[in-house]
Amino acid sequence: MTSQTVNLAEKLSLFSERWSPKIVADFNGHDVMVVKVLGEFNWHSHPDTDDFFLVLKGRLRIRLRDGDVTLGPGELYVVPKGVEHCPVAEEETHILLIEPAGVPNTGDPATAAAKNRI
Amino acid sequence: MTSQTVNLAEKLSLFSERWSPKIVADFNGHDVMVVKVLGEFNWHSHPDTDDFFLVLKGRLRIRLRDGDVTLGPGELYVVPKGVEHCPVAEEETHILLIEPAGVPNTGDPATAAAKNRI
Repeated sequence: MTSQTVNLAEKLSLFSERWSPKIVADFNGHDVMVVKVLGEFNWHSHPDTDDFFLVLKGRLRIRLRDGDVTLGPGELYVVPKGVEHCPVAEEETHILLIEPAGVPNTGDPATAAAKNRI
Repeated sequence: MTSQTVNLAEKLSLFSERWSPKIVADFNGHDVMVVKVLGEFNWHSHPDTDDFFLVLKGRLRIRLRDGDVTLGPGELYVVPKGVEHCPVAEEETHILLIEPAGVPNTGDPATAAAKNRI
């Protein structure tokens, strides 16, 4: 197995579409991804996996049923499995995400974005 | 299960010792940790787990038997399981690490640093 150095800013410069996670590395059966977001996503949950968010740029609000959390650059939050959440960004925000390979980003394969590798 | 927002710089401000990973979050059976390093670690490998490094500050060289990789801020590298590596930092460097809970950082429980939660 080979591995490569990943520069997150460089990877983020390669695309402009939002809510479309790009796989940049593999780690213990997980996809390490970068994504650009703006606006509101949908309420969803992942029954079998925690959801890891690390903000690289901008500001992310994660709406939760019992209150919101807000993340700036260098701040991370893990949404525990089964917990409903809805990410919202009022400015373009860049995030590092880690999820088990194959997990749909919306919690539902029917509505999930394709995760392409860059 | 509860979860908290983690500000990485704030967590890093809470300690000064080096080569002593601090757990800041849990994620799918993994420890998410911050660590400060300076100098050379030891050659080791993890037979059953990939090793995730994301540099937050400074510069990390990861010596590998077939060549080195060097990471600056915002750069990540996954050392595949079983691959011998030796981290080296010529200036104090801050890193985000992710490893399965309970994995010894040296690859050997006898020499591993305790991983405390902060």
